[in-house]
Amino acid sequence: MSKYDEIKHLAYKANMQLPELGLVLFTFGNVSAADREESVFAIKPSGVPYSELSEDKMVIVDFEGKTVEGNLRPSSDTLTHAVLYKHFETIGGISHTHSSYATAWAQSQRDIPIYGTTHADHTTYDIPCAAPMNDDMIQGDYEYQTGFQIINALKERNINYEEMEMILVGNHAPFTWGKTAAKAVYNSAVLEEVAKMAYLTESIKADALRLKDALIRKHFERKHGPGSYYGQS
Amino acid sequence: MSKYDEIKHLAYKANMQLPELGLVLFTFGNVSAADREESVFAIKPSGVPYSELSEDKMVIVDFEGKTVEGNLRPSSDTLTHAVLYKHFETIGGISHTHSSYATAWAQSQRDIPIYGTTHADHTTYDIPCAAPMNDDMIQGDYEYQTGFQIINALKERNINYEEMEMILVGNHAPFTWGKTAAKAVYNSAVLEEVAKMAYLTESIKADALRLKDALIRKHFERKHGPGSYYGQS
Amino acid sequence: MSKYDEIKHLAYKANMQLPELGLVLFTFGNVSAADREESVFAIKPSGVPYSELSEDKMVIVDFEGKTVEGNLRPSSDTLTHAVLYKHFETIGGISHTHSSYATAWAQSQRDIPIYGTTHADHTTYDIPCAAPMNDDMIQGDYEYQTGFQIINALKERNINYEEMEMILVGNHAPFTWGKTAAKAVYNSAVLEEVAKMAYLTESIKADALRLKDALIRKHFERKHGPGSYYGQS
Amino acid sequence: MSKYDEIKHLAYKANMQLPELGLVLFTFGNVSAADREESVFAIKPSGVPYSELSEDKMVIVDFEGKTVEGNLRPSSDTLTHAVLYKHFETIGGISHTHSSYATAWAQSQRDIPIYGTTHADHTTYDIPCAAPMNDDMIQGDYEYQTGFQIINALKERNINYEEMEMILVGNHAPFTWGKTAAKAVYNSAVLEEVAKMAYLTESIKADALRLKDALIRKHFERKHGPGSYYGQS
Repeated sequence: MSKYDEIKHLAYKANMQLPELGLVLFTFGNVSAADREESVFAIKPSGVPYSELSEDKMVIVDFEGKTVEGNLRPSSDTLTHAVLYKHFETIGGISHTHSSYATAWAQSQRDIPIYGTTHADHTTYDIPCAAPMNDDMIQGDYEYQTGFQIINALKERNINYEEMEMILVGNHAPFTWGKTAAKAVYNSAVLEEVAKMAYLTESIKADALRLKDALIRKHFERKHGPGSYYGQS
Repeated sequence: MSKYDEIKHLAYKANMQLPELGLVLFTFGNVSAADREESVFAIKPSGVPYSELSEDKMVIVDFEGKTVEGNLRPSSDTLTHAVLYKHFETIGGISHTHSSYATAWAQSQRDIPIYGTTHADHTTYDIPCAAPMNDDMIQGDYEYQTGFQIINALKERNINYEEMEMILVGNHAPFTWGKTAAKAVYNSAVLEEVAKMAYLTESIKADALRLKDALIRKHFERKHGPGSYYGQS
Repeated sequence: MSKYDEIKHLAYKANMQLPELGLVLFTFGNVSAADREESVFAIKPSGVPYSELSEDKMVIVDFEGKTVEGNLRPSSDTLTHAVLYKHFETIGGISHTHSSYATAWAQSQRDIPIYGTTHADHTTYDIPCAAPMNDDMIQGDYEYQTGFQIINALKERNINYEEMEMILVGNHAPFTWGKTAAKAVYNSAVLEEVAKMAYLTESIKADALRLKDALIRKHFERKHGPGSYYGQS
Repeated sequence: MSKYDEIKHLAYKANMQLPELGLVLFTFGNVSAADREESVFAIKPSGVPYSELSEDKMVIVDFEGKTVEGNLRPSSDTLTHAVLYKHFETIGGISHTHSSYATAWAQSQRDIPIYGTTHADHTTYDIPCAAPMNDDMIQGDYEYQTGFQIINALKERNINYEEMEMILVGNHAPFTWGKTAAKAVYNSAVLEEVAKMAYLTESIKADALRLKDALIRKHFERKHGPGSYYGQS
């Protein structure tokens, strides 16, 4: 027993959803779950196949990126998670995948335009693609800088991390987050579907129009905020 | 026991077909089944995952959109269903999904051209894409207006709802209907396949030709009308 | 017991492979198996879902298209099968699907160019797309004429049916055949994969080159003819 | 019992991964596992369906391509494996598939540009596409020459086989290798995913930029070489 059992459990279950949802090949992804009171998170160990994962293999890391508990080396992306937990103060989970369509948009270095209500049900903005970092940052502390690359991309666009729970890291792949690890994984799956639909939309109509503002607002407000009427409660 | 058990059962079974047919991610879809004698329909509760669905969770709603029986909030698209049941007087089921290819055509705001016999086996017309509604309608009673948006798109094209059991709502996603809830779901799957084939057809040949009239009529009549000879009986 | 049990069994098993190989949605396909001594074939009944199929539901039809045994109506494409069995004298099975990529090429009314060895392993020619038939033929005996449409497309290209066991019917969908029903279904799956690869090839390189003659011959001869060395015996 | 039991086991298990990973249709692929001390490898028998494969059906072949043990005919691509084992002295496994996206790039005769970190995690170079061989070589000992075609393509680009464990054979399909048969199959799956992502990237942005050098080096070094920090130990 450890006081971290709860987040280990949440991180394990969320990680196992990635292959179930078809979002990862081999070990190309990782999810973490945070305990805000203890200022730590549980994250997938690096390079361990999903079929060999278990709750007790999750690594506990603090928000500076230091391992607090666990015998395995944490995900190579751990410092990115740490930076995001430190700066996005209300999130409880982070998910990183190399899902095919979202990654293709990241490789294209394009924001994903908001073409329809599937997108607007989740956010009112285009999904940002953070510009690749400069060479100094890459040669410095790369994963740490990736966290700031994400934070800065939102800042430049004047978007709050609670309004936009998904991002593309240019030439790399998507990161998503949320109140819980399960929500972060949900966002990874939604992003992949939105990325696929936007790709198909442009293939069907090269000059497709973005969704108009009234529809963006309407669909987002159906699901979010004081007047929402989607779901139970 | 309730006098609505039959339509709850039909609605439940039809809803469960959506994930089996690969037509929904998470809860992005809903199906209803109508009882014409009682002027009510059973519909999926809002935001409830398919894995947690059961017959007794179906919500009974009348054709004005008022809940008649059930403890859960009905689908956020319930008013659209209600309007369609009221105006399409012979239908017994409605299905709504965000399936990838059909949604991409909706986001492109293009009708799906009739390129082949797979399409003509089901309807003699291009699949209409209803133009996005104006801002007043959006800010009014949105889901109610979506019903009229669908009705009007058929009217403008002079197509009867019995000849065309599928439609794309511009920038949103497809709705389909039929004599039964099972037929409505069948139409959702056919629409997705027809949408995929039309997308591939234009990719393979940018100026692909529509199917000629003689073939459209022949294939439709093989399956429908007095001289049909497809299926048993 | 019936003297047709063997072909009923073969037809049933071959039909059941279509959904297993992902080649059909609902009932959009049919396979038949011939008994050359009896000049009959067993074929799927029309419109019966694969999940409800059984050996004894197969319908026995002669090469004129007349039902010889069975209570169900045979596939609506039965006359096409009958014509092909009559004219392609050494074949023992025919398969018809609406598989997505092959159907998209048919809708594009283009032959599938031979771009690689996956294609050349099976035939040395582009896969022909038969031109849509003229209106008189459509309004006449349509399925019967579809058989001749296929026969004529091969004749025009001076290709023997033993050298080319697959064809696209323009605006419609593929037909394939072979020594056995199992081989016909195998060809349906190969055609779908070849159609997908050719589509991707042109997307990656708009002016992709056809495979050169020496490679076409080499790969075909590896698998076929006197000097073949693929497979056992 | 045979002194080759170990490589038969490894070859069998690696071959069976191909259908599990969705990399083969029917028998369109083969994997081998080498025993460097005995200078032999175990390879799939030719044309045998994966469902009928077993460890004892694997064929033992020496590096000249001569069968050493086994009653079945080895894969028709055996000579290509033999040549590669002879010249790539540290590899222990080879995998050959006709996976859809990688094969489409091969048919396009284009190298796969390095567009993102998924690619750079595995190699710092574009994936080479070996030019189709000349007609004399094709009519000579084709599979033997395919081995040299691969070796020469790396030589021309001045790339070592340990730095690039995957290649496209122009107009044909991919070959991959690695320290073990399992690693070779892993590389087949990675190549297919990288090929898919590069295709999507160019579809989303026709003039997409290659990954910049600093990112290529960073991602490769995260996983490989003295300073690597991916995985356990």
